[in-house]
Parts: sequence; C-alpha cells; structure tokens
Amino acid sequence: MAAAAPPPPPAPAPEPSIAFQESSRRDNPLFSRIRLATPADVPHIHKLIHQMAVFERLTDLCSATESSLSATLFNSAPFTSFTIFLLEVSPKPFPSSERVIYLDHPLIDPQRETFISDNVNDVTVAGFVLFFPNYSTFLAKPGFYIEDLFVRECYRRKGFGRMLLSAVAKQAVKMGYGRVEWVVLDWNVNAIKFYEEMGAKVHDEWRICRLTGPALEKYGDDAI
Amino acid sequence: MAAAAPPPPPAPAPEPSIAFQESSRRDNPLFSRIRLATPADVPHIHKLIHQMAVFERLTDLCSATESSLSATLFNSAPFTSFTIFLLEVSPKPFPSSERVIYLDHPLIDPQRETFISDNVNDVTVAGFVLFFPNYSTFLAKPGFYIEDLFVRECYRRKGFGRMLLSAVAKQAVKMGYGRVEWVVLDWNVNAIKFYEEMGAKVHDEWRICRLTGPALEKYGDDAI
Repeated sequence: MAAAAPPPPPAPAPEPSIAFQESSRRDNPLFSRIRLATPADVPHIHKLIHQMAVFERLTDLCSATESSLSATLFNSAPFTSFTIFLLEVSPKPFPSSERVIYLDHPLIDPQRETFISDNVNDVTVAGFVLFFPNYSTFLAKPGFYIEDLFVRECYRRKGFGRMLLSAVAKQAVKMGYGRVEWVVLDWNVNAIKFYEEMGAKVHDEWRICRLTGPALEKYGDDAI
Repeated sequence: MAAAAPPPPPAPAPEPSIAFQESSRRDNPLFSRIRLATPADVPHIHKLIHQMAVFERLTDLCSATESSLSATLFNSAPFTSFTIFLLEVSPKPFPSSERVIYLDHPLIDPQRETFISDNVNDVTVAGFVLFFPNYSTFLAKPGFYIEDLFVRECYRRKGFGRMLLSAVAKQAVKMGYGRVEWVVLDWNVNAIKFYEEMGAKVHDEWRICRLTGPALEKYGDDAI
C-alpha cells in the first residue's frame, strides 16, 4: 500500500543572523560546498531521508530503500527531472569551496563515519535538497518545486538551510525559470518567518489535495 | 517581470450525480474523449489558458503567448515532464469514444468556431488538464502534480472535470506512481467536497511558499 508522504521537514531552523558573520578569529574553519548528487550517493541520500523521517516522527510512512531510490532517481539529465543537491562540509578547503565559517569550538559530528563521502579529504555529507521542475501556465515558464530540504542536526543554525535553498533559487534564475515553490506547516512560525525573510510569499488560501494509497489505486480499475 | 501564477481554477463545479446518469432518451448525444495534446494544439491551449485567467479574474497575471507555450511545452516524452490532456467533444462518435452523455436539449457552444479541432468530424476542444511528475522521497516514487484543470463554461456540470482528473489518476496508477496532487482555494467548499468525494485528502496544515518575480531574480546576483 502506498502511504501518504509528509510535507517537507518543518524547514531548517531559522538561522540567527550571527551565523552569517564570520568571526574575527580563524579557528575551527568549516568549509562547505553544494554539488549535484550522483547514483553513487544513494546510500547517503537514503540515510538522510531516514533521518528526516525520524525528525518528523513519520518513520512509519517512510518506505524508501536504496534500491527504490536508485530505480527512480537519476534517470534523466540534471534539472530536467528529480534533482538532488548534496551539502558537503570539511575542515579543509575544497578546490571550489563556496563558503567557510569559523566556529568557536571544533564541531563534533557523532555520525561523521556514517556520512563520510571522501575519507582522504575529510569530507562529510551534511544535508540535501531534492527538487524538480514544475510549470506555470500563466507565465508559460517552468519553475522548481522543492520537495525536501534537510540538514543534519549538528550542522543546523549555521546558514546551511539558506545555502541549499539559495542554490535552488540561483539555478532557477540561471535557467530563466519563473518561480521556486515548497511547502511549510502552518504552525511552524519560525520556518515561515525564515522563508519570508528569504523573499517567499506564503499563500494562506491554498490547500493541497492529495490522492494516494487505495483511493488512488481504484482509478486503475477500468470500470472507473 | 515574472508574475505570481494563480492556483488551479476553483475547480470544476461539483457535478450533480444526475449528470452521470444516462438519460433513457437517446437524443442529443455528446461524445467525448481525452487525448494527449501535441504542438499543433498550442493555439487552442493558449485560448483555454486565457479563458481560465478570465474566469479567475487574473488576466493581468497571464503573460502566456502561443510562442512562449510552444517554447516550453512538448520538449520531452509524454508523462516524463509537462503533459497536457485535451478534452474533445462531438455530436458524432469518435473511433475511440470514452463516454457519451445524452442531453435534454442540443448544446449551444457559442465559441464552437473558435475551438474546432476537426471540422470534418465536428470535434471541439472543451477543456484541458496540465500535469507533470513530482516525487515523494518517503515513497521513493514519482507521482503527478496537476497544475491546471479547466472545462469551458458551456460544458461544465456534465462530469468532464471528473473525467479529466480521473484520466490523470488512471495514468498515475498505470505507471506505478504513488500519488496525484493539486491545489484548491480554501473557501471553495464545493470544489473541496467534490475532490473529497473523488478520494482526495485536503491537507489543511500545509502552506505553499512561493519565491517569484524580483524576490527570485535577486538570487541570480553572484553576491548572494
């Protein structure tokens, strides 16, 4: 039975503005970059999705496996269908680091071993965003819809949620797309404030209708 | 400037159950079928979108032209990206009619000439649905998102909205997809009732966030 999937996570916690200030000290640097995920990243993506389900207390609705993710993702060119940006961090600079922050204390990542993506260069996967094209008939233009955005717990409140969302918005502009959309829970006032600060409008009158599970399956019956 | 596009129309009016009953009389038959739209249908699609904007009183937000629709639609195989089903009607049977209803009176379509798609066989375009794949990480499955569903005024309350929505649901089941979603305005209680009768769940807690226009464009600035 297909289960109803939840909305995207209640969003990255709002990032205090101090998180964007580089400290005058240069201790404990944390370099980061965003790159396109590839099929080789599926084990990390699967673990991130599972953590997201735990965070949302919806593990009973999460039936994704490495195998089912591999079968349904990466079947087309990036940005033309389901696309994943991975967030990677390292205490060492990347050849193309997009951002560095300096921390007051060394960051302890209790799951570092689980999420290592490059042992030699000490690179760890810290989050992801999954998005795909949508379409506006009024604009006669595609846009992007963000299905999930997730940052692992020890990397939150450091501007990475904003960094992932900005990367999708930047890609949309680069492609001449008309909009970027996502969903937030109405009681998540911190997330709503954060999104509004990022320039988004929250559409209060719209409600999402979902046909799934047995209610959808019955449309496979030729009699309908 | 990119303008915010509206939600799908307030939905096909709820269809009284009597509309689905075939009359015992066999006068005034109206045959119908749903078929995939092609690039040749763009002039009709453009007119339908314009009518939808008029219906929603949002013509100022509708900047679609035949040229911009042609440039952004039909660039990939059906169902893998933006896809349009057209609803066609005729007083004569189609080779593959999906449905026939019998009307108490001959139907007067004041815009018949404008929407004729096959003059020889007296076929008229009566509506459309535009949809595209979305993705659930929890299900690790695609689904379909319905962006627009529109039936021309003189063909409403005859079960065609249901027919178009069912066609998308049926296609989703056929492809093994996990869900079909769309948006409704919260004050449109008739549409909500209709959708719930079709098996959909309305998710009251979710809000759509949209980044568009100048607020989106600023992410194209490299400084961000």
